[in-house]
Amino acid sequence: MTHQLEPMLRPKSVAIIGASNTPSRIGGRPINAMKNAGYKGEIYPVNPNYETIQDLPAFASIQDVPKGVDCAIIAVAAKVAVQTLRDCADQGVKSAVMFTSGFAEQSDEGARAQREITGIAKESGMKIIGPNCLGVFNISAGWYGTFSNAPGALLHPPGSIGIVSQSGAYGAHVFAVSQLRGVRSNYWVTTGNESDVDVAEVIEYYAQNPEVKVVLAYAEGMKDADRVCRALEMARDAEKPVIFMKVGKTDAGAAAAASHTASLAGADAVYDALFKQYGVYRAETTEEFVDIAYACQFGNYPKGRKIDLQTISGGVGVQMADASVKYGLDVAPLPKATQKKLKELIPFAGVNNPVDFTAQALNDPKLMEANIEMTIEEADFDSHIVYLAGVPASPFTRDACREIFANIRKKYPDEVMMMSLIGPQDIVEPFEKMNIPCFEDPSLTVRAMAALTYFGEVFSRGRPDKPSALPKGALPAPVEPIAEHEAKKVLNSIGVPVTREELVQSAEEAVKVWQKIGGAVVMKIASPDILHKTEIGGVLLKLNSEKEVAEGYATLIDRAKKAKPNAKIDGVIVAEMVSGGVETVMGVVCDPVFGPAVMFGLGGVFVEVLKDVTFRLAPFGVDEAHRMINEIQGRAMLDGVRGAPPSDLNALAEALSKLSVYAAENADKIETIDVNPFIVLPEGAVAVDALIVPKGDAS
Amino acid sequence: MTHQLEPMLRPKSVAIIGASNTPSRIGGRPINAMKNAGYKGEIYPVNPNYETIQDLPAFASIQDVPKGVDCAIIAVAAKVAVQTLRDCADQGVKSAVMFTSGFAEQSDEGARAQREITGIAKESGMKIIGPNCLGVFNISAGWYGTFSNAPGALLHPPGSIGIVSQSGAYGAHVFAVSQLRGVRSNYWVTTGNESDVDVAEVIEYYAQNPEVKVVLAYAEGMKDADRVCRALEMARDAEKPVIFMKVGKTDAGAAAAASHTASLAGADAVYDALFKQYGVYRAETTEEFVDIAYACQFGNYPKGRKIDLQTISGGVGVQMADASVKYGLDVAPLPKATQKKLKELIPFAGVNNPVDFTAQALNDPKLMEANIEMTIEEADFDSHIVYLAGVPASPFTRDACREIFANIRKKYPDEVMMMSLIGPQDIVEPFEKMNIPCFEDPSLTVRAMAALTYFGEVFSRGRPDKPSALPKGALPAPVEPIAEHEAKKVLNSIGVPVTREELVQSAEEAVKVWQKIGGAVVMKIASPDILHKTEIGGVLLKLNSEKEVAEGYATLIDRAKKAKPNAKIDGVIVAEMVSGGVETVMGVVCDPVFGPAVMFGLGGVFVEVLKDVTFRLAPFGVDEAHRMINEIQGRAMLDGVRGAPPSDLNALAEALSKLSVYAAENADKIETIDVNPFIVLPEGAVAVDALIVPKGDAS
Repeated sequence: MTHQLEPMLRPKSVAIIGASNTPSRIGGRPINAMKNAGYKGEIYPVNPNYETIQDLPAFASIQDVPKGVDCAIIAVAAKVAVQTLRDCADQGVKSAVMFTSGFAEQSDEGARAQREITGIAKESGMKIIGPNCLGVFNISAGWYGTFSNAPGALLHPPGSIGIVSQSGAYGAHVFAVSQLRGVRSNYWVTTGNESDVDVAEVIEYYAQNPEVKVVLAYAEGMKDADRVCRALEMARDAEKPVIFMKVGKTDAGAAAAASHTASLAGADAVYDALFKQYGVYRAETTEEFVDIAYACQFGNYPKGRKIDLQTISGGVGVQMADASVKYGLDVAPLPKATQKKLKELIPFAGVNNPVDFTAQALNDPKLMEANIEMTIEEADFDSHIVYLAGVPASPFTRDACREIFANIRKKYPDEVMMMSLIGPQDIVEPFEKMNIPCFEDPSLTVRAMAALTYFGEVFSRGRPDKPSALPKGALPAPVEPIAEHEAKKVLNSIGVPVTREELVQSAEEAVKVWQKIGGAVVMKIASPDILHKTEIGGVLLKLNSEKEVAEGYATLIDRAKKAKPNAKIDGVIVAEMVSGGVETVMGVVCDPVFGPAVMFGLGGVFVEVLKDVTFRLAPFGVDEAHRMINEIQGRAMLDGVRGAPPSDLNALAEALSKLSVYAAENADKIETIDVNPFIVLPEGAVAVDALIVPKGDAS
Repeated sequence: MTHQLEPMLRPKSVAIIGASNTPSRIGGRPINAMKNAGYKGEIYPVNPNYETIQDLPAFASIQDVPKGVDCAIIAVAAKVAVQTLRDCADQGVKSAVMFTSGFAEQSDEGARAQREITGIAKESGMKIIGPNCLGVFNISAGWYGTFSNAPGALLHPPGSIGIVSQSGAYGAHVFAVSQLRGVRSNYWVTTGNESDVDVAEVIEYYAQNPEVKVVLAYAEGMKDADRVCRALEMARDAEKPVIFMKVGKTDAGAAAAASHTASLAGADAVYDALFKQYGVYRAETTEEFVDIAYACQFGNYPKGRKIDLQTISGGVGVQMADASVKYGLDVAPLPKATQKKLKELIPFAGVNNPVDFTAQALNDPKLMEANIEMTIEEADFDSHIVYLAGVPASPFTRDACREIFANIRKKYPDEVMMMSLIGPQDIVEPFEKMNIPCFEDPSLTVRAMAALTYFGEVFSRGRPDKPSALPKGALPAPVEPIAEHEAKKVLNSIGVPVTREELVQSAEEAVKVWQKIGGAVVMKIASPDILHKTEIGGVLLKLNSEKEVAEGYATLIDRAKKAKPNAKIDGVIVAEMVSGGVETVMGVVCDPVFGPAVMFGLGGVFVEVLKDVTFRLAPFGVDEAHRMINEIQGRAMLDGVRGAPPSDLNALAEALSKLSVYAAENADKIETIDVNPFIVLPEGAVAVDALIVPKGDAS
């Protein structure tokens, strides 16, 4: 089935409404650009004041143009733009690119007009991009539905990159920078106010378009969670890397985002969760954004993290090794036997990893070939970086370098290899043609290889594991906030382990429960009116005799009555005493765009001081939960510190996954869940306290 | 007084020993380069086989050259190189650049020969750089004492940058990359094996040479701590930024560093301490190294952290705001009145900060000028970044842009201003001439401004505060390890507060001490043979009656005798019970190169799991101690969490400074000190346990 954006991004016929005879004007630029680029479809300039426009016959109105045009460019004033769109829809135009501004970004009145546009798109099925956008282009088709200067930055033939940017100015910026970096883009789309088509829909289009192999996306916020998730999933299934710049990370940034667009920025932690979950690479700077895209366009992804570093400078070898560790790659040593043979080739070489050819390689470049070949043959690396500085550019060594790498590539067509060198485009290009991406900065070469390794892992992992369904006896979401005992009943019903405990109404019952539990117990007052139990002395620890338990009951009731004479008292909770283990916290928050997200972190200072937490969108399986656990800073706590035994990570991961399933099933009913502390033991884990707050509860 | 490297780096006469007629050969390159560059001094080629070399009269040996040559280039084989050096020294040659390799980097024999070279330098006073180095150059003097290809990368007239690199290959790399980036270097020095002149001595030279304003330094390790500290201090006193790349950060990196050079890499934490203490900027990648140098060469440093961000794209504004927060800058909002006026100028602008001109500024560029002027006039920012993408390069807006910024610069010559734009060198240069550094990537523009702000703080701070001297009664360093009570006596004597406590030998004495302390006490067994007291039950808490204290004494003696019948028992410590406060750790380690360094961190998981510690070289004052305290991750703990009161930071800083003074005074006697825990209270602080280990103690 043809994607609904096909007529907009590969149109066979185009109408320009508000066409201009002047090639530099907004309504003239698309016509001029398409004529220059040899666009093969029909071009229909629409303007009632001219017979011909830029030597093409002009039409007085869209009604005069043959029906069923693929795409109309709307370059008319805001006051007539909505009616023009309606006319297009009536004429069976399949899509529209709206340059016109003056809508939601400008005033309430503009926002109302924009809602009309959304309505036209929905009713007619005509796809609309914009308003207030810089348009779209498709270089290989010669289709320039844009008035941006961006196409003027073109330096390379079109390749496999598709760019989509909510912001037109940033879209133009990134196109220019990426051309300078040797990134070969073909598609470029800016979505502006997103009255209909949004960034996610364009990603979806790229995911199914065989011309696009790598997606570069920029957004300040996203509004349609389902479409975003579906689009990212399609891209991952198609093994197309998505590199995303989502701005608005810090508070200062977020404030600027809110003032800039009408879009909802959402909590940044939730975007982080989304990107991790769908294997998206999140770039922090434009330079990183473009550098990773450059690396991805070669389409080779390492199968694992073992990296081989080869260098003509020991110092740069150290830099690359440092960077590899920073980016999570494994600078594994070469096999001892290989090290010995390399030493024989170049006596003063470093042979462990990094392999340092030394300047000797310049005197006899063939040594370099032998060195690299031996490393590929005898060791088992997933990727290779060779640092050569100016050697490939020097007239003395240029030809030898090319020959060496051509030989290596012929023998080992599938090895993932990058080069760090300094030289102009004519020096770099022969290596790029050998499928060897080239970088100037050695540390940033490593960063790019780490990005490819990340995508390699994402693609080989494929779709994440499915979470198990909720158990049959799962309790429904509460209608008012429930704490402690009631909340733990819910957790228990969905398979999240909780402390063994009972709510009792007398000292005798309390003693019976203590006997059943068999060991020291904790006793707590249970009252919906007493939230901070410890403040009134409402928690007693380590009670372990009939006398202690019976007296404890009386003490708690007494304290509660004294502290809050009118409090409703449900009784006293008698619970097993949990000792040892590592304190963690789990929770659920409800994002207005993406719905429930599950949080995980370690207790105490990790959460309170370091904010060391991570999120995932609900629901997710146990494997994803393990990835969450592995990415917190304090991860080592769970391996056991100060001689403590390691924690039961499976029990923890199971609990996170189950909580996520419950949150997803009750997405419309639950506002927040806190499970704090959730103690992970050497065997098993147990929720000690919990709070569940339903939606719409103002208390 | 003339610096001892003056003859090497600004020589009036040069001998090339091993001179070649062929301009491309090692012994021919310097002569060829100097002739092309119009070197004004005398050039004496030395080679017994020629009458003339490259049209200059040749000399058979250094003895035939006029005495007192400023610099000799040694380009002869290793086996005759040492004798050649000796001959130079005998002839009164003032300095030598040794290209020859085959010394410490190659073999033990080579290392012996290198020690001879060091000896010649010491005895004769002739300064020697190398062996195994790529040499030196000084572009403005036309002096090329190098056989590197680096000078071929020259693109700009010489400026104010001095480069020094231990590694020749990396030195050439960074010269090439920095030229591409528009960094105007003049001096370039590679130190190779550092038999005499090291990186630090060259920094010292740059610090006192008025031609150099910015220092770029690269090293894998350093050996002469005093010289390094002196050099960095001179540079800071002269307000010359030093940007340092010191590789070998991670374990993998450090292993590669050790295999590459004969130098001592030292613990990386100690280098971090050194750099922070002397206000050096540590770069992580070559790209960062060069980018910061580029920014520094304009010589304007902001006076504070308040940054004004102006942009033609809201999205990029958000990126820059995010980056500003990341790099510790303050994106302060504009005054409300100014915001209102800006809104009047551009109705749809973002006016808080970032200020978003919107595309309106392109239609009427003068609006931009008014905008920026108003911001400078009415708000109190320390720095400004203006993001303009391709606007300054577009033929429609190029001239207007130049005019606007020329006007602004004329009115406000001292405002620190940067621009983020895309365009070739001819577009960038006019702005550079207005003292506006230009960057492509908006986030990296912010990084560069943050670096300038860092140097601004370093320079305005000047020399750090001097620590107070040790008190008169300070105890000497111990001769064997001392723990707990004895160690705390030492701390107390140097002014570091410790728990009030006494060592007692009877239950009666114990009771007397308890009475004196007046409140609950802790009692601990004191025995040099029992290190892990808690394991044998040797610590009793919260004793607060005559009976408890007397019984406690008996219990502890009893437990100690049972657990270790032969242990020497000194008695029992009766100490005040410290409650509340924040647990921290302080310590001293002795670095083989830099001597004692003081560590600070928070106790518990912060040290054990997160390794959240920071170091400074001893001694240092209270202000430096405050900076240490402020840079740990868990800093917020000291402000009080969960309703705890804030900690007494002055008491903590005082203690760190005093410990540093003691460590420095006893640098040759003390191996390590641990003060753990050191509890910081709302008022005051107190060491609860400590251990001091002297040097040379193997126990």
